[in-house]
Amino acid sequence: MHEFELINLIKEISLAHQNTSSSYVTKSIGDDAAVLKIPNDHELVVSTDTLVDGVHFDSKLSAFEIGHKSLAVNLSDIAAMGAQPVHVTLNLTLPSIDRDWVEAFLNGFIKLATKYDLELVGGDLTKGPLSITVTAAGIVQEGASVLRSGANPGDGIYLSGPIGEAAFILNNYDDLIDTSPLHLPEPHIDLGLALQAIASSMIDLSDGLSSDLNHILQSSQCGALIQATQLPLGKSLQSELSFTDAVNLALKGGDDYVLCFTVPEAKEQALNKLKLQFTDISKIGVITEDKQFLVELENETQVVKQQGYNHFNE
Amino acid sequence: MHEFELINLIKEISLAHQNTSSSYVTKSIGDDAAVLKIPNDHELVVSTDTLVDGVHFDSKLSAFEIGHKSLAVNLSDIAAMGAQPVHVTLNLTLPSIDRDWVEAFLNGFIKLATKYDLELVGGDLTKGPLSITVTAAGIVQEGASVLRSGANPGDGIYLSGPIGEAAFILNNYDDLIDTSPLHLPEPHIDLGLALQAIASSMIDLSDGLSSDLNHILQSSQCGALIQATQLPLGKSLQSELSFTDAVNLALKGGDDYVLCFTVPEAKEQALNKLKLQFTDISKIGVITEDKQFLVELENETQVVKQQGYNHFNE
Repeated sequence: MHEFELINLIKEISLAHQNTSSSYVTKSIGDDAAVLKIPNDHELVVSTDTLVDGVHFDSKLSAFEIGHKSLAVNLSDIAAMGAQPVHVTLNLTLPSIDRDWVEAFLNGFIKLATKYDLELVGGDLTKGPLSITVTAAGIVQEGASVLRSGANPGDGIYLSGPIGEAAFILNNYDDLIDTSPLHLPEPHIDLGLALQAIASSMIDLSDGLSSDLNHILQSSQCGALIQATQLPLGKSLQSELSFTDAVNLALKGGDDYVLCFTVPEAKEQALNKLKLQFTDISKIGVITEDKQFLVELENETQVVKQQGYNHFNE
Repeated sequence: MHEFELINLIKEISLAHQNTSSSYVTKSIGDDAAVLKIPNDHELVVSTDTLVDGVHFDSKLSAFEIGHKSLAVNLSDIAAMGAQPVHVTLNLTLPSIDRDWVEAFLNGFIKLATKYDLELVGGDLTKGPLSITVTAAGIVQEGASVLRSGANPGDGIYLSGPIGEAAFILNNYDDLIDTSPLHLPEPHIDLGLALQAIASSMIDLSDGLSSDLNHILQSSQCGALIQATQLPLGKSLQSELSFTDAVNLALKGGDDYVLCFTVPEAKEQALNKLKLQFTDISKIGVITEDKQFLVELENETQVVKQQGYNHFNE
């Protein structure tokens, strides 16, 4: 299969899912660069991730799942800014062109893109060790993006869904377990958009709560006190682990892609309305003035250690 | 070296070169995504390329040159749209963190970025086989981007500089040859911007004239007749090769990153003014109605074969 045939296959699969071209796209695949419309008085929000074979995924993931996940992790970042994703580029490095693999990959990728009216507008194809880079762009009203730096003492700390399940799956692969939380994470885009006017700060959980909430604390120059009993534990954590082990895994486990956000007291009523629609939202603690990151267990309060993932653990 | 230390090194090297933050950047490195300002009534132009060790570069290139080239090839695409580059993201996949290599790489990358007031606003660091993905974004007045599809019969065909030299270097590595045309290509950004109101179509030469001009012909639904004697041959082609060999290499050789563009007769006067500043511009032929791609040699007219580079030559 020739490189140009692969480009045509990508166009075909894109078009099969998307009836009309996005109103944000002037020129898509097929020129030196894509040309994209940004509505007046909006800002652009850009996130990029590289997924490498054997590091971010392995043979336990199907090509469809790899396609889905490579886009999902990016969209999760766009969601965490309170932005609306509008287009995406895809750089595929492949050892060779295996048409079945590429088709399944693209189906996973494009299905998720189509769900959010996101157009694939460009990219690059290269021969080499299997690796995928996705760059997603969203738009947001000028000044409306939700940064990590806006949390204030007294703000409640919330999660948009259960945590720890992805890490549990990674540690306990077997045929009986539902791998979808790890392999097919769903970016919380609609909630991210709804939180734009409510959250004071926001981040998505990719490295784990202890590491990611700490980014908010560092950027916002404050601390946190979270309640272990309030952590929304993944279902396997509840059924398979002791409470202490479950809390530890929930704190340090990554790959959950739920949103962690803070809400000022004055916005709590607006948040309560939102909870009717997004029923997985739960409060896990409060932002404090004292710059420590603490977790309240049954009998004691502990300092939360930073245990985030480091790619270069040397 | 820890991943976070490397991120700090990247920020340091960026800041050492750039005194003030770009007016196009609201939030740079350090959040879930970058937040970027697009002036009203402008469009966004996005290009992305992946460079893989052993495919796009090898040990003959220094880390500084790899840093320069990985950005230059992208900026060349932005230039070919007639756009002004404004920000860039960098995804680095490294087998391990070699501080000296990374510093030299970043110096090459950031030096070129700074030359064009381009800010590095985000990216990703991953462990894996050495590979680099750069995504550059530019801005252009709404509707003003120069596409491949605008050429018309009668338009002159032009090149912005000599061709074939990069391919000659690749075929003739030795210590005496100046490798800078291959290792340190200079994107023709200022010329691309100046051509915005003059060129009817434009592309940058990455795969070679025969392949890249053919993209214009396909998109514009027309043909071309070029004059072999008018081709601006690289200096080694002139001194080392027979005329026939030189023309062949100039037609099929890639990696030159000069601009190939077409200009309607009505704009020739404006182009002549531009030539006073950009003295390397030369006319190589004319766009024809007949959809053939022909080259006029001394005694005969030949059809130009498509010889562009295919990554997956299987």
